[in-house]
Amino acid sequence: MAGNTFGEVLRLTSFGESHGVAMGGILEGMPSGVPIDFDFIQLQLDRRRPGQSAITSPRRETDQIEILSGIFDGTTLGTPIGFIIRNIDAKPADYDQLKEAYRPSHADFAWYQKYGFRDYRGGGRASARETISRVAAGAIAMQFLKQQGITIHAWVSAVGDIQMEDLKSFDADAIYSNDVRCPSPSDAERMIAYIKMLRDKGDTTGGIISATIQGVKPGIGEPVFDKLHASLGHAMLSINAVKGFEIGSGFKAATMRGTDHNDPFVNHGGKITTSTNFSGGIQGGISNGNDINFKVAFKPVATIMQPQESVDASGDPAIVTGKGRHDPCVVPRAVPIVASMAALVIADQLLRSRLSRL
Amino acid sequence: MAGNTFGEVLRLTSFGESHGVAMGGILEGMPSGVPIDFDFIQLQLDRRRPGQSAITSPRRETDQIEILSGIFDGTTLGTPIGFIIRNIDAKPADYDQLKEAYRPSHADFAWYQKYGFRDYRGGGRASARETISRVAAGAIAMQFLKQQGITIHAWVSAVGDIQMEDLKSFDADAIYSNDVRCPSPSDAERMIAYIKMLRDKGDTTGGIISATIQGVKPGIGEPVFDKLHASLGHAMLSINAVKGFEIGSGFKAATMRGTDHNDPFVNHGGKITTSTNFSGGIQGGISNGNDINFKVAFKPVATIMQPQESVDASGDPAIVTGKGRHDPCVVPRAVPIVASMAALVIADQLLRSRLSRL
Amino acid sequence: MAGNTFGEVLRLTSFGESHGVAMGGILEGMPSGVPIDFDFIQLQLDRRRPGQSAITSPRRETDQIEILSGIFDGTTLGTPIGFIIRNIDAKPADYDQLKEAYRPSHADFAWYQKYGFRDYRGGGRASARETISRVAAGAIAMQFLKQQGITIHAWVSAVGDIQMEDLKSFDADAIYSNDVRCPSPSDAERMIAYIKMLRDKGDTTGGIISATIQGVKPGIGEPVFDKLHASLGHAMLSINAVKGFEIGSGFKAATMRGTDHNDPFVNHGGKITTSTNFSGGIQGGISNGNDINFKVAFKPVATIMQPQESVDASGDPAIVTGKGRHDPCVVPRAVPIVASMAALVIADQLLRSRLSRL
Amino acid sequence: MAGNTFGEVLRLTSFGESHGVAMGGILEGMPSGVPIDFDFIQLQLDRRRPGQSAITSPRRETDQIEILSGIFDGTTLGTPIGFIIRNIDAKPADYDQLKEAYRPSHADFAWYQKYGFRDYRGGGRASARETISRVAAGAIAMQFLKQQGITIHAWVSAVGDIQMEDLKSFDADAIYSNDVRCPSPSDAERMIAYIKMLRDKGDTTGGIISATIQGVKPGIGEPVFDKLHASLGHAMLSINAVKGFEIGSGFKAATMRGTDHNDPFVNHGGKITTSTNFSGGIQGGISNGNDINFKVAFKPVATIMQPQESVDASGDPAIVTGKGRHDPCVVPRAVPIVASMAALVIADQLLRSRLSRL
Repeated sequence: MAGNTFGEVLRLTSFGESHGVAMGGILEGMPSGVPIDFDFIQLQLDRRRPGQSAITSPRRETDQIEILSGIFDGTTLGTPIGFIIRNIDAKPADYDQLKEAYRPSHADFAWYQKYGFRDYRGGGRASARETISRVAAGAIAMQFLKQQGITIHAWVSAVGDIQMEDLKSFDADAIYSNDVRCPSPSDAERMIAYIKMLRDKGDTTGGIISATIQGVKPGIGEPVFDKLHASLGHAMLSINAVKGFEIGSGFKAATMRGTDHNDPFVNHGGKITTSTNFSGGIQGGISNGNDINFKVAFKPVATIMQPQESVDASGDPAIVTGKGRHDPCVVPRAVPIVASMAALVIADQLLRSRLSRL
Repeated sequence: MAGNTFGEVLRLTSFGESHGVAMGGILEGMPSGVPIDFDFIQLQLDRRRPGQSAITSPRRETDQIEILSGIFDGTTLGTPIGFIIRNIDAKPADYDQLKEAYRPSHADFAWYQKYGFRDYRGGGRASARETISRVAAGAIAMQFLKQQGITIHAWVSAVGDIQMEDLKSFDADAIYSNDVRCPSPSDAERMIAYIKMLRDKGDTTGGIISATIQGVKPGIGEPVFDKLHASLGHAMLSINAVKGFEIGSGFKAATMRGTDHNDPFVNHGGKITTSTNFSGGIQGGISNGNDINFKVAFKPVATIMQPQESVDASGDPAIVTGKGRHDPCVVPRAVPIVASMAALVIADQLLRSRLSRL
Repeated sequence: MAGNTFGEVLRLTSFGESHGVAMGGILEGMPSGVPIDFDFIQLQLDRRRPGQSAITSPRRETDQIEILSGIFDGTTLGTPIGFIIRNIDAKPADYDQLKEAYRPSHADFAWYQKYGFRDYRGGGRASARETISRVAAGAIAMQFLKQQGITIHAWVSAVGDIQMEDLKSFDADAIYSNDVRCPSPSDAERMIAYIKMLRDKGDTTGGIISATIQGVKPGIGEPVFDKLHASLGHAMLSINAVKGFEIGSGFKAATMRGTDHNDPFVNHGGKITTSTNFSGGIQGGISNGNDINFKVAFKPVATIMQPQESVDASGDPAIVTGKGRHDPCVVPRAVPIVASMAALVIADQLLRSRLSRL
Repeated sequence: MAGNTFGEVLRLTSFGESHGVAMGGILEGMPSGVPIDFDFIQLQLDRRRPGQSAITSPRRETDQIEILSGIFDGTTLGTPIGFIIRNIDAKPADYDQLKEAYRPSHADFAWYQKYGFRDYRGGGRASARETISRVAAGAIAMQFLKQQGITIHAWVSAVGDIQMEDLKSFDADAIYSNDVRCPSPSDAERMIAYIKMLRDKGDTTGGIISATIQGVKPGIGEPVFDKLHASLGHAMLSINAVKGFEIGSGFKAATMRGTDHNDPFVNHGGKITTSTNFSGGIQGGISNGNDINFKVAFKPVATIMQPQESVDASGDPAIVTGKGRHDPCVVPRAVPIVASMAALVIADQLLRSRLSRL
C-alpha cells in the first residue's frame, strides 16, 4: 500500500506534484456539525506560504484553497472534504538539469530507484510543497479541536546552535510576530541574523521546533502500537527534513534516574494530575491530562547555492548547483506544518477514543 | 480503532495481559515459502526473557512459544501464523495494592481514565510483558529478511551518562556476550556496575539503544506519510518507556549546515552510493542502499523500590512502594525488542515496495 | 494484504488450518465493560460443531474454546480478546491422495496456484472448519448487541427445491428445535428426508439461509462504499460455499415498478417508520429502523461420495473419491455462521456510527 | 471510520455532493509505468453521463474530468491520481421541498438520522451522481488491467420481466450500440419500449446487469474474508439501488445437487481448467482461470413522477412529488459503473496477489 493516507478515523489522503496542476486532498472522517471558518484555513496556508519574508523562498504562490465538498452552510456534513490548491508559479525549466543529476541529500536517487520513473520538476511529489495539503487539513482539524477545548502551539526553539531561552510561559501571539516564528524576540533576532548570514553564503541550517498541546483530557491514545506519542512521532517524522522526535523528557530521559524522572500524582482541587511532567503528558501511550510537549529536529535544507559533486543516473560524475527557489532554513515555514500534523493526530485519536468503552 | 495491530502488509496483531492466561499474536501477510527455524524464535524470546542475569527482573517465565498455524513442514504457508506464550510465573497477589493507588509514571491512571476498568495485575496489558509477541513475530520476520540479504543489529550504546565509545565496527556476536548487551566490553562493565549500584539503592536508570540495518536495497519506503524512518519511529515509540527517536544525524542535524550535512553521491565500482551517511540510509523517506542507522532513548524504569507519594482512585493520598519483580534498567532486555520491531517495519515495507511499479 | 481480518473498528483476525494444531483468532475493538457469558459462546460453537446429528459430518470435535485475554472478572477490558480451539479429531491420513489430485469445485487447485504450497490435509485453511473462529467472535459480538437491544436470527428457508412456507412470524426457539434449523416443523421434516435420501446416494444439495436483524436504530451504515448491506453482503459471501446474497426485495426488485416497490414513510405513534419493507431495513446504505432482512444462497457441498474425474498437479487424469467426513448439506451448520457474521457486521457498524456526529 | 474509501492496495477515496462545487477522488496505489489514455476515461464518463438518450435523466452535465496529479507524460508516476469533475447543471431550487419531506425509498430519512444535518439538494452525497468518481477511477484501472490481459464487460440482461435471451457469445461492441446497453438487439428494443411506457406513466422499473471478466489468471483473491467474489459483491452492493448479487450459479445453486454442480477439472492442451463453470471462475475465493461471471440486481428508481404519501421531519403527513431530473430505469447508465467497480476490485486483488509468495 502506498503511503498517501494519514490517520485511522480522521484520514487525510493527499495528492499533488510540486510543478503539476494542483496540490490537494480529501479529509475523511470529520464528524458532521463542526462550524468551519474558511478564513482561518487560508491564514494557516499563508503562514506556510513561500515568498513572505527575507528568509524564505521567493517562489510566489497565492496558495488559495478551493473547498469542493463536505461543508454546507459553513458546517461540516460528515462527508469527505475535498480541496485543491493550484500551482501557479511553477517554473519547471529551473529543473531541467535534474533529469540528469541526483541532488545530494534529496529524494531524487531513492525515488527513481523505487518507481523507475519520476516527475523531476522541483522534486515532484517529494517536494515540501506537498505539506500544503497537511496545513489545509490541519486547519480544519484545529477547528474541531478548538470546540473540544484543545489548543496546539508550535514554535521555533532552535536554529543551528542558537537555542531559545527557557521561557516560563509566552503569549501564543508572539510566535507569528516575527519571521522566524520564535516567541522570544531577542532569540528571534539572533536566529534571523544567522539565517541571513548563511543565505548570503549560499548555505543552509537546521533547527528545532517545539510544541505543546493543551486541553487534552486523560484517556486519549491507543495502546499498544498506536500510543499517542507513537502517532505523534510518526506524524512528525513524515514531514520533509525531520531527523528526530522527542516526547517529554526525550533523550535526556536516558541519562536520568527513576527517582528524578517519575511524575508524582497529586490532587489539585479535586483533579488528579502530576506535579512534574517529564512524561510529556502521556503515560502508557495515553494522555494523562497534563500538557503534551514534544520536539522535532530538522536537518539543514539540502539545496545549497553552491556547486556540489554528485553523479547522474548513469553513475557518471556531475556537478549540481542549487537552482529553483529555496529556503535557507526550513523551520520557520515548518511551524504551521508541525502544528497541523499534531492537530490531525489529536483529532484522530480523540475520535478513536470514543470507541474504548461501552 | 484500537491499536493492537502493527504493519500494513505484514501485520502483527497481539493480545495478552501480563498476569492473564497467555500472551500471543497473529502474524498475517508473511508470504508462502519462507523456511522457518523454530529454535531461532525461541532464542530471541530467551534474549528478552526475565530472570537471566543479575541486572534483570527475577520473574521466572519459561516463555516457551507454541506455534499454532501458518507453518507446514517447516515452511510458511502464506496463511496467518498464530502463536501463544503462556504466563507461568504470575503472582497477581503482588499487585493487590494497585487496585487502589496509581503508580507514578506508570499507565495505571491514564489507562483507567480511558477504559473505566482494568486488569490491575502487573499492569495488565500495559506491562512490557506485551512485547514478547513482538519478539516472536520479529524473529519470524528476521528469517524472511535474512533470505533477502538483510540483517539487523541493535545494542545498548548508553546507560545513564555512560556512553559507549565510538567503535569503527564490531562483531555482532559481541552484543550478546555480556549482560548489558553493549558490544564494547569495557563500557559494558561500567554500565553493569552502574546498574547494580542503582539496583542496590532501589533506583533505576534510562539508556539508549542504537541499531543498524544492513542490506536494504534502494527503493524501500512509502512517501509521503509512511516514509521509512516514520514507520521506524512509530515502531520504536510504541515500545514501553521510549521517549525519543533519531534517524541518521538526528537532533545533531539541527545544529549543522547544509554544506556539512549533505551526503555526496559517488560511484563505487558501478554502484551509486553516498560517501557520508548523515541521512541514515534514507532520503525522501526511501532507502538509498546505505546502512540504516537509528537511536532510541528509554526513560528510567518507573517502578523503584522506594516509597513514593501518590493518590488513589478517589484522589486521596497514598504511598506506593515498588513490589513485583522489575528491572533496574530496561535497555538490556529491550535490545531484541528494538531489533524485532525494526524487522517488522523493514519486512512490511519491503513487501509494500513490491507494489510500486508495473 | 492478506484477507484474514474482518471489520474496521471491531476486527476479527483468524488463523488455523483444519488439521493443524488449533483454530483461533483475536477479536479487537470490543469496548470495555461488556459482560460476557462464556456458556453462550460454547453454545454457539456447539451449534456449528460437526457430529451432532444424522445429517452432519461425523467428525468428532469437542470444539472447546479457551479464551486467553481481554476478559477480566467476566467483563471485557477493551483489550484484544485472544482465543483458541484445538483440533482434536484430525485424521490427516484421510487426505493423503489430495497431495496428488484436485477435488472438483474445491479450493485445491486455485489455492495451489496462488501460494505454490499448501497444507493439503482436509483443505487446510480453505476448510469450512475455519468458520469456527467466526462463530466464537460472533457470539461475543452478539452479547454486545444484546445489550444494545439488537437480536439476530438466521434459519434455513430452503433446501434444494424445498422452500419453507412464508411464516407470518415464528418463535426463534423453533429454529434450533430440529436438525435442519428450519422453524417450520413440517418443512423441516421434508428437508431432512431429502438430505438423508441424498446422503444415502453419496450426493449433496444446496440451500438458502434467511436472516432478520431486529432492534437496529436508524443511522447505522457508512456510505458510500461501506453501505450496511454491502458490509453484510461481503460478510456472507466470505462464508464457504456461498453463491448469492439478497437484501430486502433482492432479485425480485429487478422485476418490480417504483410504484410497487417504494416504502411509504408513516408515523407510528410518534415513530417514523415505513409501512412496507422492500428496502430490507436499509436505505441509502443506512439502517432506517425497520427489520433488516437478507438471504444467502449456498451451493451443494463439493465433496460427494462418488468417483469424479479430475486431474492431478501434473495435469494427468485422476479419479477423486470423497473421503473424510463431510456434510451432505451445509446449511444447517451454517445457520450460526450466518448469524455470527451478521453480528460482527452490525457491531462493527454500530461502533463506526459513533463517529458520524460532533 | 467513514466509508468513502474502496480497496486495499489500489484505493479510491471519493468526495462530492450532487449539487456542490465538484465531484472527485483520489486513486492511490496505481503502480508507476502504466500508460494512460485520457480519451478512454472521458469515453467511460460519457457512457455514464445523463442526458444522452430518451430513456435517461435530462440533467445536462458535461462531466469533463480534470486530472490534477499522478500522471506525467501520459504515464502513471506511482503517486496518487487526483481528479475532479465540476457540477455544472445544478438546480438546487428543484429540491427546496426536500428540506421538509422524506422521499420514500430514498436515503433522506436514514441520512438525517445518521448525521443530524444534510445537504438536501438532489440527495447530496447520497445521489447516484457520486458514482462518477467510480467510473473515472475504474477507467484508469481498466487500462492497467488491459495491459495485464484482462477485459471486463457488463451489460443489461433484464429490465422488469424482460430477460435477455441466452446468447452463446456476443460482440462487446454490441453493448453500447443501443440506449439500453443490451447486446441482444431484439431484447434491447423491447426493453426500451417498456422503459418509455413506464416513463410516460411517471413510473420506473428495476433490472439486472450481468458481467464477465476474462483473462484473470488463477491465484487472485484473498481468503478467508476477502474472497474474490466477496470483494466483488461488496463493490456491487455499494452501488446505489443494488439489492442482490450472484456469483456463478448464484441462487440457482441452492436448488442443485453436488453431482450436477461440481466443475470437473480437465487438461485442455496443457492448461488445467474446468469443463463447466458453475463456480463462476472462483473457487475457495480464488480465481481458477475460467471466466468470472456475476449478476447484479437493481431496484426500480425511487423517484417516481407521481404524488406519494410520506411524512416530514416532524412526523407530519406530507405529499412528495418527483421533481428534479431522473432516470425511469437506472440499469443502462449503471453498466459502466458495474464494469468500473469490477475493474477496481480486480486491479486491487491482482496487486494484492503479488504479496502471496516469497
